[in-house]
Amino acid sequence: MEPQTASPHTETPESRLNAWLAESPRFTLAAAESCTGGEIAHRITSVAGSSAYFLGSIVAYANDAKAALLSVPQEVLERPGAVSEPCARAMAEGARRAFGADMAVSTTGIAGPGGGTPRKPVGLVYIALADPSDTVCEEHHFPGDRASVVAAAAEAALALLATRVEAALSRDGQSLDAGLSVLHPVES
Amino acid sequence: MEPQTASPHTETPESRLNAWLAESPRFTLAAAESCTGGEIAHRITSVAGSSAYFLGSIVAYANDAKAALLSVPQEVLERPGAVSEPCARAMAEGARRAFGADMAVSTTGIAGPGGGTPRKPVGLVYIALADPSDTVCEEHHFPGDRASVVAAAAEAALALLATRVEAALSRDGQSLDAGLSVLHPVES
Repeated sequence: MEPQTASPHTETPESRLNAWLAESPRFTLAAAESCTGGEIAHRITSVAGSSAYFLGSIVAYANDAKAALLSVPQEVLERPGAVSEPCARAMAEGARRAFGADMAVSTTGIAGPGGGTPRKPVGLVYIALADPSDTVCEEHHFPGDRASVVAAAAEAALALLATRVEAALSRDGQSLDAGLSVLHPVES
Repeated sequence: MEPQTASPHTETPESRLNAWLAESPRFTLAAAESCTGGEIAHRITSVAGSSAYFLGSIVAYANDAKAALLSVPQEVLERPGAVSEPCARAMAEGARRAFGADMAVSTTGIAGPGGGTPRKPVGLVYIALADPSDTVCEEHHFPGDRASVVAAAAEAALALLATRVEAALSRDGQSLDAGLSVLHPVES
């Protein structure tokens, strides 16, 4: 007999989010994307049911858009610049505010092939996540070409979001619904 | 000897946009996406050089985001509703304003598998394009599953945008740069 659910190894972060949130949307989610260029939103919305909890994403490719739509301070964009931890944090917090979402994830980095410098090489990506209590930020260095960097950044951002949602709902003592037994264990 | 450029049949709309705009960005572009969920932005930004002319996209999946971030009037969202020509037009015009872009394209539709009605079946997608002089809107009925509808809608929106950019630059009497001989002829 075939198993009813996918194995943990074939679960994507977006399907984990959907398993937690589609039927009981206790959190709403949003994103602010620079280097991933819409790929995070595309992957979340590729799952039927995501409209129950995903409000949207601001793809702020231009710096002016980061300032106008996400309220990233001009002094952050000037120094340390758009590819920095402070910018990623401001983008995630700005997306939460703009959409009125409970959690938002952001990406800003250098996908290449151009734009890299010795201090900020191609593959450098900052990923931040803002929720009502805190904002966290990760620094990544992804190998490969433009498509590989974008794909890896989107995967890491979605994984961070899924892990945070799982941790928050587990802390709340939510019952584990059918299918959730296949999810990765939550790190506390 | 191998040809130096791709044949017209393998050119994507996003590579046509890049050929016209990357080196001489006479137009800036933006998007407002509902049913395509970020796929338009993802495809444009997958091409290196797109940051010269692509400002960003507002993925407004929730109706509240369409109102707050794209200024879609509440009465449009109530009737005729988010999947309608007036909403698509308002989204495209709202994206132009939000990003300060010259041209913006929008999508709103029903990707399925749920959400369809007899009057608004799965596969119904409105695509609008706003530029400084006009806003146009197309109604499409795409076949297939959720992924097929999203992919077809993104392709059609990108094709509309590329054709408009080509037409506008041709009308302006711009010289045809290297590589543009492979582009589709512009319909006048």
